[in-house]
Amino acid sequence: MKSITRPTLLIDSKKVLNNIRRMKQKADESGVVFRPHFKTHQNLQVAEFFRQEGVSKITVSSVSMAEEFAGQGWKDITIAFPVNLLEMSQINRLSQNIQLNLLVDSLFTTRFLDQHASNHLTVLIKIDTGYHRTGLLPHDPEIDDILKEIAASPKLTFGGFLTHAGHTYQAREKDGILDIMEKSREQLISLKHHHERFYPKFIISYGDTPSCNLATHFHGFDEIRPGNFVYNDVMQLHLGVCSPGDIAVVTACPVVSILKEREELAIYGGAVHLSKEHIEADQGFQLYGYVVRLDENLRWGDPITGAFVHSLSQEHGLISMPEKELLTFKPGDLVGIMPVHSCLTANLLRDHFLII
Amino acid sequence: MKSITRPTLLIDSKKVLNNIRRMKQKADESGVVFRPHFKTHQNLQVAEFFRQEGVSKITVSSVSMAEEFAGQGWKDITIAFPVNLLEMSQINRLSQNIQLNLLVDSLFTTRFLDQHASNHLTVLIKIDTGYHRTGLLPHDPEIDDILKEIAASPKLTFGGFLTHAGHTYQAREKDGILDIMEKSREQLISLKHHHERFYPKFIISYGDTPSCNLATHFHGFDEIRPGNFVYNDVMQLHLGVCSPGDIAVVTACPVVSILKEREELAIYGGAVHLSKEHIEADQGFQLYGYVVRLDENLRWGDPITGAFVHSLSQEHGLISMPEKELLTFKPGDLVGIMPVHSCLTANLLRDHFLII
Repeated sequence: MKSITRPTLLIDSKKVLNNIRRMKQKADESGVVFRPHFKTHQNLQVAEFFRQEGVSKITVSSVSMAEEFAGQGWKDITIAFPVNLLEMSQINRLSQNIQLNLLVDSLFTTRFLDQHASNHLTVLIKIDTGYHRTGLLPHDPEIDDILKEIAASPKLTFGGFLTHAGHTYQAREKDGILDIMEKSREQLISLKHHHERFYPKFIISYGDTPSCNLATHFHGFDEIRPGNFVYNDVMQLHLGVCSPGDIAVVTACPVVSILKEREELAIYGGAVHLSKEHIEADQGFQLYGYVVRLDENLRWGDPITGAFVHSLSQEHGLISMPEKELLTFKPGDLVGIMPVHSCLTANLLRDHFLII
Repeated sequence: MKSITRPTLLIDSKKVLNNIRRMKQKADESGVVFRPHFKTHQNLQVAEFFRQEGVSKITVSSVSMAEEFAGQGWKDITIAFPVNLLEMSQINRLSQNIQLNLLVDSLFTTRFLDQHASNHLTVLIKIDTGYHRTGLLPHDPEIDDILKEIAASPKLTFGGFLTHAGHTYQAREKDGILDIMEKSREQLISLKHHHERFYPKFIISYGDTPSCNLATHFHGFDEIRPGNFVYNDVMQLHLGVCSPGDIAVVTACPVVSILKEREELAIYGGAVHLSKEHIEADQGFQLYGYVVRLDENLRWGDPITGAFVHSLSQEHGLISMPEKELLTFKPGDLVGIMPVHSCLTANLLRDHFLII
């Protein structure tokens, strides 16, 4: 353990592989393309685990990420983010070498792509099935305008309709999550039926980990794009869509102070390592992560009962912990923090990780 | 403006210099040492602005930051964080070349330093004057134990008592902030009087931007360590300790989508750029930043009335904006986001900034 001296993301390769295999198998059984979202890990070694399991198409959420993974030999990349027109020259460079699939949600953006693309581009239309972040509602007449613009363009090909049902994160129960998936499916299938008379070859693409973790099948979709499932986190645990043993990452943090009277432990591990993402827990406190013991091989089991990170400043974290457990720690020990939102934690510790 | 293609921290050098000069002058007038906290900017060019203004002693919050700034020629560095014993070899390397001041809050840690330090180290004792993050309460008998351990050590020198009055961030009014400063001052001065019979040469060191921004003088302290003041942010603005014109940074973000019906604007700029730090606003919404227009020189004025970032996911931000203003934007424009917490935003955009 002595090689870790500051906050470091521990990635349990066995758990990662289990998470990948489970999702891949479910996708295969439903006959849909598995195009995992790489924004969660942004890690070239974890990307190789996916490749080993037969994945060849991926999703990212920025042009920079697309550049990073294209540089590593990934040849079919969807940037599942409304296209950033300011990166047109980067897009043109990328599309020389790979199959690049971009997302639009307006005629303005589609027209801009048509005018400025120097190579072939596949364009998907972002559909808002209820999350209300970006995208067009399924009945928005602008969809037809975009389709006509694409059809008339020598550079653009229509790839299909894509949605991210991020509102599953607001659902309180498993039935609520599956219900959101069902409604998104209905909307996308209906859109497909409506348009496939004119555009015979396009897909409907669906994403979000809570429902993909929970679903027993993906029938009706052509493609799924979950991302978080590769690591999972406390948020997925609270949604009831994973178990503690499915959480594949923790942040190893040095203990710096034992605050016996307050039954607290201070760690070197703050907002710049764990992120300020939190869950408003029932008892009125904010939960920034669960706490696990690390063994000599840096492996961990279930969270310590009654222990949680309740406060973060830039570099400090404060853990509440029952006294009996607290007294087993001393400054200079390491402790593991199970992240509330693994995507944000992994992004912060992108240059500081260890695959075990 | 065309050179900015993705979320980028704009640092207004004139505002930075004004903020530095104002604080430096107040410190000089009170005859206290100005040892600014560099965790806010972590930027070698901004560090040079401080050097130009006559600053030679600095504060950081991690050994890594100390290494970074020592590498840039800073020779007197306080790591204002309970010492991380796992970084003892890094500490020993650093203390060969610079005056390194470390923070302890337990006999255990002090003894460890005594046993493992290979060079001279100055040790300050962290005092908790009410923030209740780390540190010993002023009457904790462990203070005497630590002082005896230091006195008996050939390697350690007692540097003084240090506090961070971070509870000023929870104060609702200006009087409340100054009251916290006053109580911290009384506690530190009383500690100083109590111990100076035995340890004639040590300091009391005080930090936190809200009170240092507000105070007219620093009498009684020997040293101040504010950090955030160099940039300020929406949090300081809400505390009433700076004006919009004192906020020296905004994040330039590409507009990617105009959601006319919802009176919203989607930007490329999410939690991985701005951080999830937010303010719970009175109307029940979460405020992740104010919005400014950028002119052709990337300069900005006051925030757009009625516009604010209300939601962030990993890479997306959603801005609420009155329709009249909204319709002046189109995808591919840049917009400026005034950060809620500039330290976290600057940390996230550390490799992606522009000094203007």
